[in-house]
Amino acid sequence: MSLLVVGSVAYDSVDTPAGRCSEALGGSAVYFSIASSYFAPTSLVGVVGQDFRDEHLRILKEHSVDTANLEVRPGRTFRWSGVYGAEDVNTRDTLDTQLNVFADFSPRLSPEVVRAPYLFLANIDPELQIDVLAQMESRPRLVALDTMDFWIDGKRELLERAVRSADVLFMDAGETRSFAGEPNLVRAAEAILALGPTAVVVKRGEHGSLLFFEDGSVFSAPAFPLRNVVDPTGAGDSFAGGFLGYLSATHDLNGDGLRRAAVVGSVMGSFAVESFSTDRIGSLTRTEIRTRLEAMTELSRFLPLWEGEALPWRTDGASMEN
Amino acid sequence: MSLLVVGSVAYDSVDTPAGRCSEALGGSAVYFSIASSYFAPTSLVGVVGQDFRDEHLRILKEHSVDTANLEVRPGRTFRWSGVYGAEDVNTRDTLDTQLNVFADFSPRLSPEVVRAPYLFLANIDPELQIDVLAQMESRPRLVALDTMDFWIDGKRELLERAVRSADVLFMDAGETRSFAGEPNLVRAAEAILALGPTAVVVKRGEHGSLLFFEDGSVFSAPAFPLRNVVDPTGAGDSFAGGFLGYLSATHDLNGDGLRRAAVVGSVMGSFAVESFSTDRIGSLTRTEIRTRLEAMTELSRFLPLWEGEALPWRTDGASMEN
Repeated sequence: MSLLVVGSVAYDSVDTPAGRCSEALGGSAVYFSIASSYFAPTSLVGVVGQDFRDEHLRILKEHSVDTANLEVRPGRTFRWSGVYGAEDVNTRDTLDTQLNVFADFSPRLSPEVVRAPYLFLANIDPELQIDVLAQMESRPRLVALDTMDFWIDGKRELLERAVRSADVLFMDAGETRSFAGEPNLVRAAEAILALGPTAVVVKRGEHGSLLFFEDGSVFSAPAFPLRNVVDPTGAGDSFAGGFLGYLSATHDLNGDGLRRAAVVGSVMGSFAVESFSTDRIGSLTRTEIRTRLEAMTELSRFLPLWEGEALPWRTDGASMEN
Repeated sequence: MSLLVVGSVAYDSVDTPAGRCSEALGGSAVYFSIASSYFAPTSLVGVVGQDFRDEHLRILKEHSVDTANLEVRPGRTFRWSGVYGAEDVNTRDTLDTQLNVFADFSPRLSPEVVRAPYLFLANIDPELQIDVLAQMESRPRLVALDTMDFWIDGKRELLERAVRSADVLFMDAGETRSFAGEPNLVRAAEAILALGPTAVVVKRGEHGSLLFFEDGSVFSAPAFPLRNVVDPTGAGDSFAGGFLGYLSATHDLNGDGLRRAAVVGSVMGSFAVESFSTDRIGSLTRTEIRTRLEAMTELSRFLPLWEGEALPWRTDGASMEN
């Protein structure tokens, strides 16, 4: 296995302006591994209850996601329910969280996966993130980490330890500011880079993402403008899945590679929101992915007139020079 | 004069997380014309009261902005005061609006400006926008129009007439949705394009802008990530000033030209927010503008691996084909 993900497997009940769904397959590790599976063999570490349905296991297997480390424990699978804003589909309220078997999640990696060269620590307790990394036989080539305000507020010190061990950090803009204790996003990202990561990926939903690199450069990856937004759940994890899947397939870990990874991630995130659950992200053809990647290129294309050419300064002798 | 702008000239009092300023030079026509003045000779149509200070007229003249159509009327200059959010600097509340001489603004264009090939109708009463366009001796090569929710809610029919006469429309995302009566941004922009404009420019503040073209293509112009945000007032008008200034200087009116115009606009908007009032946008060197344009190119640069090359699909024989 080239890519290992540790995260949640869940049943989500979601209410959005486009409709609602009940007890549908979800969870960070599910969205991530389905998205990454198009590019790289992926192994999922997680836990479900005895109520986890065969049809959902089958969805993962159809994508050749290795589920040998998906533990089945007595009890019920993690449940989450939430409602997305009618005005602004990017805001959401959690209605209910039932951790169930996820409450005692304590991942034990099998010998087959501890040598994975790429590791994604999805949004779970930073204590578990640190523990998983410690179980790896050798330090993976790339460790990426996602988190959320719940851990920033509740387990800051442990989270900081986890961040210091990661290469790539995924956060939304508010989390980046809050974790760094700095209201300006650029300065906040710089403060986090100073902890150790080589890149901070700021997820901005329908506004795309910003990548801040340790050398001071920045990349702005656009989001694909969608005519049909159904359910934003899982967009960030699908983004990360495309991102890490691309890197695992190419080993293209320099700045240019991370830029391309963000564009692939943006494409996979855009598919995730076009349906409830994994319906869309789980049924893509390579042609669909390729077509949208080409659209992303067109979306951000401009020919700079100002490289090696004079800018069109006014020529009527007005004052502004140099 | 190659570029004509009709809009407000104001004294703004602004409270932001970075500080406050009182009775500072502002107004849509001021920000616009200073930004455009770097690229194209610009003529400003507006009105001020007898309290308008010489030092502020001097700022415009220093940028060779033609103020022959800036009327001075008995009374006080337009006043606006507002406060920007401490949490999110992109949200603002208006504390007070005193229209003063602007209440009876009824622009009469001089013979020198009615042949201007480029026209920007800043955010004013759509009745005045229509009236100004009617005063032009011949239809300008390009007419651009800005508006706001106040006119969308209050003068929809007149605004729709004005929009039908425009080539390029500037709105923020909420205004685009509201004017079109369509919650999805892509569909909303398409509905507006169906009225006549060749391009709809959706301004998204720190998230950049989206250009929707009548041929169905879309361009996402990033915003320059700023380490120092002082006051967002005037960013949209400075964006429009860079946009129209670039087009007026180059006559580069096809899709590629509009894409470049949006990047120039984004750069000028980014300077506007780095100070209160016009302090920063009014004191730029060509080197500063060029340097930031180059940074914008770097910000959005990626080399698509997927043009003419195989994508890095997984190669372990897993199922997903075509």
